[in-house]
Amino acid sequence: MLKLFRKAARKVGLPPGTLVQVEEKKAEKVRISLIDYDEAQFQEKEVETVEECFPFKDKPSVTWINIDGVHQVEVIEKIGAHFGIHPLILEDIMHTVQRPKIEDFEDYIFVVVKMIYYDDKINDIEAEQLSIILGPNFVISFQEKEGDIFNPIRDRIRKAKGRIRKMKPDYLAHALLDTIVDHYFIVLEKLGEKIEGMEEELVTKPTPETLQSIHTLKRELIFLRKSIWPLREVISVLERGESSLIHKSTVIYLRDVYDHTIQVIDTVETFRDMVSGMLDIYLSSMSNKMNEVMKVLTIIATIFMPLTFLAGLYGMNFKHMPELELPWGYPGLLVLMIVVGLAMVAYFRNKKWL
Amino acid sequence: MLKLFRKAARKVGLPPGTLVQVEEKKAEKVRISLIDYDEAQFQEKEVETVEECFPFKDKPSVTWINIDGVHQVEVIEKIGAHFGIHPLILEDIMHTVQRPKIEDFEDYIFVVVKMIYYDDKINDIEAEQLSIILGPNFVISFQEKEGDIFNPIRDRIRKAKGRIRKMKPDYLAHALLDTIVDHYFIVLEKLGEKIEGMEEELVTKPTPETLQSIHTLKRELIFLRKSIWPLREVISVLERGESSLIHKSTVIYLRDVYDHTIQVIDTVETFRDMVSGMLDIYLSSMSNKMNEVMKVLTIIATIFMPLTFLAGLYGMNFKHMPELELPWGYPGLLVLMIVVGLAMVAYFRNKKWL
Amino acid sequence: MLKLFRKAARKVGLPPGTLVQVEEKKAEKVRISLIDYDEAQFQEKEVETVEECFPFKDKPSVTWINIDGVHQVEVIEKIGAHFGIHPLILEDIMHTVQRPKIEDFEDYIFVVVKMIYYDDKINDIEAEQLSIILGPNFVISFQEKEGDIFNPIRDRIRKAKGRIRKMKPDYLAHALLDTIVDHYFIVLEKLGEKIEGMEEELVTKPTPETLQSIHTLKRELIFLRKSIWPLREVISVLERGESSLIHKSTVIYLRDVYDHTIQVIDTVETFRDMVSGMLDIYLSSMSNKMNEVMKVLTIIATIFMPLTFLAGLYGMNFKHMPELELPWGYPGLLVLMIVVGLAMVAYFRNKKWL
Amino acid sequence: MLKLFRKAARKVGLPPGTLVQVEEKKAEKVRISLIDYDEAQFQEKEVETVEECFPFKDKPSVTWINIDGVHQVEVIEKIGAHFGIHPLILEDIMHTVQRPKIEDFEDYIFVVVKMIYYDDKINDIEAEQLSIILGPNFVISFQEKEGDIFNPIRDRIRKAKGRIRKMKPDYLAHALLDTIVDHYFIVLEKLGEKIEGMEEELVTKPTPETLQSIHTLKRELIFLRKSIWPLREVISVLERGESSLIHKSTVIYLRDVYDHTIQVIDTVETFRDMVSGMLDIYLSSMSNKMNEVMKVLTIIATIFMPLTFLAGLYGMNFKHMPELELPWGYPGLLVLMIVVGLAMVAYFRNKKWL
Amino acid sequence: MLKLFRKAARKVGLPPGTLVQVEEKKAEKVRISLIDYDEAQFQEKEVETVEECFPFKDKPSVTWINIDGVHQVEVIEKIGAHFGIHPLILEDIMHTVQRPKIEDFEDYIFVVVKMIYYDDKINDIEAEQLSIILGPNFVISFQEKEGDIFNPIRDRIRKAKGRIRKMKPDYLAHALLDTIVDHYFIVLEKLGEKIEGMEEELVTKPTPETLQSIHTLKRELIFLRKSIWPLREVISVLERGESSLIHKSTVIYLRDVYDHTIQVIDTVETFRDMVSGMLDIYLSSMSNKMNEVMKVLTIIATIFMPLTFLAGLYGMNFKHMPELELPWGYPGLLVLMIVVGLAMVAYFRNKKWL
Repeated sequence: MLKLFRKAARKVGLPPGTLVQVEEKKAEKVRISLIDYDEAQFQEKEVETVEECFPFKDKPSVTWINIDGVHQVEVIEKIGAHFGIHPLILEDIMHTVQRPKIEDFEDYIFVVVKMIYYDDKINDIEAEQLSIILGPNFVISFQEKEGDIFNPIRDRIRKAKGRIRKMKPDYLAHALLDTIVDHYFIVLEKLGEKIEGMEEELVTKPTPETLQSIHTLKRELIFLRKSIWPLREVISVLERGESSLIHKSTVIYLRDVYDHTIQVIDTVETFRDMVSGMLDIYLSSMSNKMNEVMKVLTIIATIFMPLTFLAGLYGMNFKHMPELELPWGYPGLLVLMIVVGLAMVAYFRNKKWL
Repeated sequence: MLKLFRKAARKVGLPPGTLVQVEEKKAEKVRISLIDYDEAQFQEKEVETVEECFPFKDKPSVTWINIDGVHQVEVIEKIGAHFGIHPLILEDIMHTVQRPKIEDFEDYIFVVVKMIYYDDKINDIEAEQLSIILGPNFVISFQEKEGDIFNPIRDRIRKAKGRIRKMKPDYLAHALLDTIVDHYFIVLEKLGEKIEGMEEELVTKPTPETLQSIHTLKRELIFLRKSIWPLREVISVLERGESSLIHKSTVIYLRDVYDHTIQVIDTVETFRDMVSGMLDIYLSSMSNKMNEVMKVLTIIATIFMPLTFLAGLYGMNFKHMPELELPWGYPGLLVLMIVVGLAMVAYFRNKKWL
Repeated sequence: MLKLFRKAARKVGLPPGTLVQVEEKKAEKVRISLIDYDEAQFQEKEVETVEECFPFKDKPSVTWINIDGVHQVEVIEKIGAHFGIHPLILEDIMHTVQRPKIEDFEDYIFVVVKMIYYDDKINDIEAEQLSIILGPNFVISFQEKEGDIFNPIRDRIRKAKGRIRKMKPDYLAHALLDTIVDHYFIVLEKLGEKIEGMEEELVTKPTPETLQSIHTLKRELIFLRKSIWPLREVISVLERGESSLIHKSTVIYLRDVYDHTIQVIDTVETFRDMVSGMLDIYLSSMSNKMNEVMKVLTIIATIFMPLTFLAGLYGMNFKHMPELELPWGYPGLLVLMIVVGLAMVAYFRNKKWL
Repeated sequence: MLKLFRKAARKVGLPPGTLVQVEEKKAEKVRISLIDYDEAQFQEKEVETVEECFPFKDKPSVTWINIDGVHQVEVIEKIGAHFGIHPLILEDIMHTVQRPKIEDFEDYIFVVVKMIYYDDKINDIEAEQLSIILGPNFVISFQEKEGDIFNPIRDRIRKAKGRIRKMKPDYLAHALLDTIVDHYFIVLEKLGEKIEGMEEELVTKPTPETLQSIHTLKRELIFLRKSIWPLREVISVLERGESSLIHKSTVIYLRDVYDHTIQVIDTVETFRDMVSGMLDIYLSSMSNKMNEVMKVLTIIATIFMPLTFLAGLYGMNFKHMPELELPWGYPGLLVLMIVVGLAMVAYFRNKKWL
Repeated sequence: MLKLFRKAARKVGLPPGTLVQVEEKKAEKVRISLIDYDEAQFQEKEVETVEECFPFKDKPSVTWINIDGVHQVEVIEKIGAHFGIHPLILEDIMHTVQRPKIEDFEDYIFVVVKMIYYDDKINDIEAEQLSIILGPNFVISFQEKEGDIFNPIRDRIRKAKGRIRKMKPDYLAHALLDTIVDHYFIVLEKLGEKIEGMEEELVTKPTPETLQSIHTLKRELIFLRKSIWPLREVISVLERGESSLIHKSTVIYLRDVYDHTIQVIDTVETFRDMVSGMLDIYLSSMSNKMNEVMKVLTIIATIFMPLTFLAGLYGMNFKHMPELELPWGYPGLLVLMIVVGLAMVAYFRNKKWL
């Protein structure tokens, strides 16, 4: 995750608005898909060149252009020129280390957020930048990589499920954001499972790896927090409905999404509280274990040191020392020693110290 | 409690407003009870089908429909259709993981809060979602499970105790919320007893279990805090009396409830301070105990190590070593060793290390 | 102090405004004293029945009715009825677990605060609820128990000291609040002495009891904080002088009281900082002591273990071992051992470990 | 410093505005000095009786009356009467435990702040209360003790350095406050040196005294914080220039002082962060040292315990035990033991444990 | 870095606006470079005397005067006199310990910020004060030392890259601030690498030096925080565009810079969270190591103490003690001892304790 904090340093000295793809290429080719719909009709196609999308700009129906891959400067530039997007915004789209934010340019709204998913392979949270441009009758979305996260929305458009076909592009933008927020819940569910697992581990047998896991979890929560708080602001601005691009009928749906982000924030904060509580528990149980170890040492030393001293004392040459019968002679002694040694080893195995 | 953080992940991809019961069924059957009253008359019945409630919608008297169980989609849908409730609200009612909130739709107010009670069987706090719809002359309340928490209110209506029969449905909604907040006090009392018990335990004999209890308590307080702060907001919105559904005469009663939530918050925060103080005490007393253990070890080692060395040194073959009389010979030695050994064991038993 | 958090749970299910004395009786009898004064005249009497106070309601002079004991429902009810106090306020007066607050009912102002004093017998802070009703020409004050805290004010009225006889009842209410805040300073002085004593103890010889005292102090400060912050709000509302019952000439005196509450808050926060610093010191000095203990152990063990091994090694049967002269024989050995043993014991006594 | 928290408790029960000197006398005699100036003329004198100042009240030139010592009730009372100062303000002047504050009485402004200096003798921060009354053409300043802190300002007036002689009394008041804030920087410089010294000490050899110093520093910073935050408020109120006594040309100078207080606050907060970091370092290095000590002990014990056991085992009577040549006999053994013992002592001296 | 907190104390007692260079000289000579440009023409020169710049004041083209070195009072004074800068501002320019701030004097805006770079030689962050005066058609920038940080901007002007030549001086001021903020990213990248390195170190082998590095990092972050927060305020004031010197077309570029400062702040806060997490990890792993050490000690002691006692016990003179064959005699014993000793040393080497 740390890499996210570094990329911003690459462009020092360039004039603002210069389009440079700071990332190594992420997808081989930029993939552009286009969906155009209104209540009556529906049209979907994979376009080869960006110019194919241009005629849709002025059609009254809702047009959704989704672009997977933001590394080709010429594609971004052409779209920017045709749809009248400010160069600084084009720069933000390509420079995929933005903090979630919203900018309202009256004739279009620019929204950039973080798409979060849990990558089971690397067992960590992955983030991707999603930029949305909401115009009067179009939505353009830019994803860093190809992904199928929006397929359920495409399906709802195709099958005219729910009210999406009857609504304006602001509802489509809402649907995209709703999906993003829903994915936070999936990640939280994953983290919740991790926390539960760790709590059990803490009680049964805490190891240094537990500490490592707590630390990782803490960092994941810091990361989530860093994305979700500004996302909340973004949605709060939209939900206030001050732009003419947001229709009154969509506001209640945006408020619903807003409530969900609040719930995400609540859960993240609760998780943080719980994780920091786990660290306390860990440290205390370390301290407990140490205490136990020291008690064993002290008991053994306190019993055997004086005895050994006494044995040593009597080992000197006293006069008239009567001789005692040694119970079973040396064999007995050796057997006794082996028994004592094995008992000790068994004791420590039992305590999981060996 | 953790399960609460997870359920929200189940609905990803569905259009908003889709009614799906996310929980496993909680009550076998949905139970609907209806009370209709004004100052002059009173009527109470258990209804079989939801349609029986519909005629009451337009009666001038106050109608209270209480629904136990929110898992049957068709019941919720029918009520929603008849009383004109927005689909998103119906979704919130069925999706029992809401954060407490209030939404004002001019012709009705929707309130969702957490009902808290202490389950002695599992020795933990249980929470249940309560949704309230306050209309111009009706109150509809949705509980997750059957419960008798509102029986005192029913009783007050039946017996015309206090001013409830003379007031409008906003007073009934206030009475429901008042009961909810009162139950927070009962839970706090329980936690207060726990804290008191634990403080004593901390002083007399702290064990690793004490730490576990502190941790549990901390989580319970985090949980309470998470429910009570938004509840405060909800009541604060109502108490401002901006909706035409809230009458001026009810506002002072809502302010009373508001004061109670502030008191709950105050107490929760105080408990949090106390519990985190207990953790400090616990760690310090661990450290104290370790110190004591180490002192015993050090004293014993420091006295007997030099002595043993001296005994060993003198055990070598010195010239002209005179022989001393051994006081009571080997029997004396053995008795002495046994006495010393037993004294040590008694000492550690006394310190509760054994 | 914990008991304060629990009493609120007793009334669940009753309609609001029901008067029930939740506390066990505190004073055997309710004691009512009445003072009536203006610049020209002064009258003071102990009244037997509450009805004796009623004629004073409409006299133009200032009337101060002080009621010690709030457990008799009928007394509170009669006053409420005669002076036109809202039932919820009467309930607040009797239910002595209120959070400090102010409510402005235009024709009277209701103020409830915590009176704090340090009880030397139990060596802890005690709190009592004081309710004040400020009307256009009367002040009614309710104390939980008999007390002489307001005697200096009575004296100022009797002897016409200062400007109290020339002022309206708002000045009298101010004088009551001023006295309350002054008592916070006395408690703070007490705590300041405790802290100073503890700081010395921390430096000279910290014991587990020191930790207990730090913890107690911390709780006392949490408690003070819980009472003084809302008291500040109460006085701040009064000092804004928005009510017609507060005259302009009194506002500057209320600001003076307000400044004092700020000073109390400042001091409480400083004490909290200091106490939490003391906990750090305590833990560090524990750690220091442990370190010292371990060093002694390590030094002793590191010197004598190799020596003992060498002595043991040479104790074996070497060939041609020449015999050395033992300086003073066994008596010398025994004397040497006793000297070493006593020196060690003296050393640990000196370190206060024994 | 703790004494500051206690003095306020002395006056309980007196009517507000009663002048009582709460402190033991601080200066033997009250010393009054007077400077009167405008752009053209300048006059300075030491006055014997307070009445000598009175004629200056209505002169158009700027008059600065500086009073060292606030313990003589009659002096304060006379000034109060002549210059029309409210009794509560006179009380605040004499009661030298005020929190910095400002009060605007239209015809004069009252400011009370803390003058801070570092007393090298007691090696601690000392504070003194400075009260300023700014009238339309006079400034009266009250210091607790005689001091020469304002001599540079007197000098600027005498020599007409800078613009002070051309400006109104508000500029003089600004100059006094500026001097006060400058003295905070001197104290901060002192603390900065302490911190630097301590950081070095922490790295080279931390001792329990280091902990004590950290604690003292922490308390000094708490103390500074307590004085500087309200001072910031005071200057912020002045700098807003809402009073007619503050001229527009002075506002920019007040803003300059305001910037300085912000810098003081910044530095105090940074120091606090650093000091609390030092505590962490201290605890960690304690823990490190303990670790090292324990390792030495464990290594020694782990090597010699088995060896000693083996030596003891072979010390028993085995059959046909061949006799070995002892290298240099007992002298060799004794020399070896002494060498080992001295080496160990040297090792611990090197580690600074002895 | 600490030195920054001290310099402010040097000027106590001087009237405000007195120009004194508080720092030891930083550059041998003051270096003044001048660039004058508009869309059509471009002129650049190194000036010898400050007077050469004066004619440019009233030219309609944009003039950028950059001054390296602020230690020569006469240079600063001459510029101040000619361009009409307030003496307090000149003082701020020379007194290079300012907190970042902005002051708007209608006909010019004064901005002072911290320029941050990472000095690889001393392996620490270095800061330098940059003061900017933005007039209607000029920008004057003051750097403490000569530096080439602004060369890319000079290049953009020379080669007419981007829109800089077409814009007003406010765009130039924006470009300077943009460069400053970009350098924060470079420093953050450096710190990010440090953190990553340290995280690995923490996992593989934490040493006391790690602790020292964590502490240094913490201080660097405190330092960054102290500069970036007020920088954010500065840019936020500019971006609001309330001054007539800021043109509407520049505001969007300033908002871009503002977004970058937010990103810097975000990253600094995240780093702080991570670093404080690392301290926890460090302490825990210390505790873990101690635990391990103690376990080894306890296991060894618990096994060998009883055995040694038994060996000592049997070493006494028992009757009829049969003699056992010693396996390989003393050579065997010595070999066994050496093997055991070496095995132990190898074990501790393996654990990195030796």
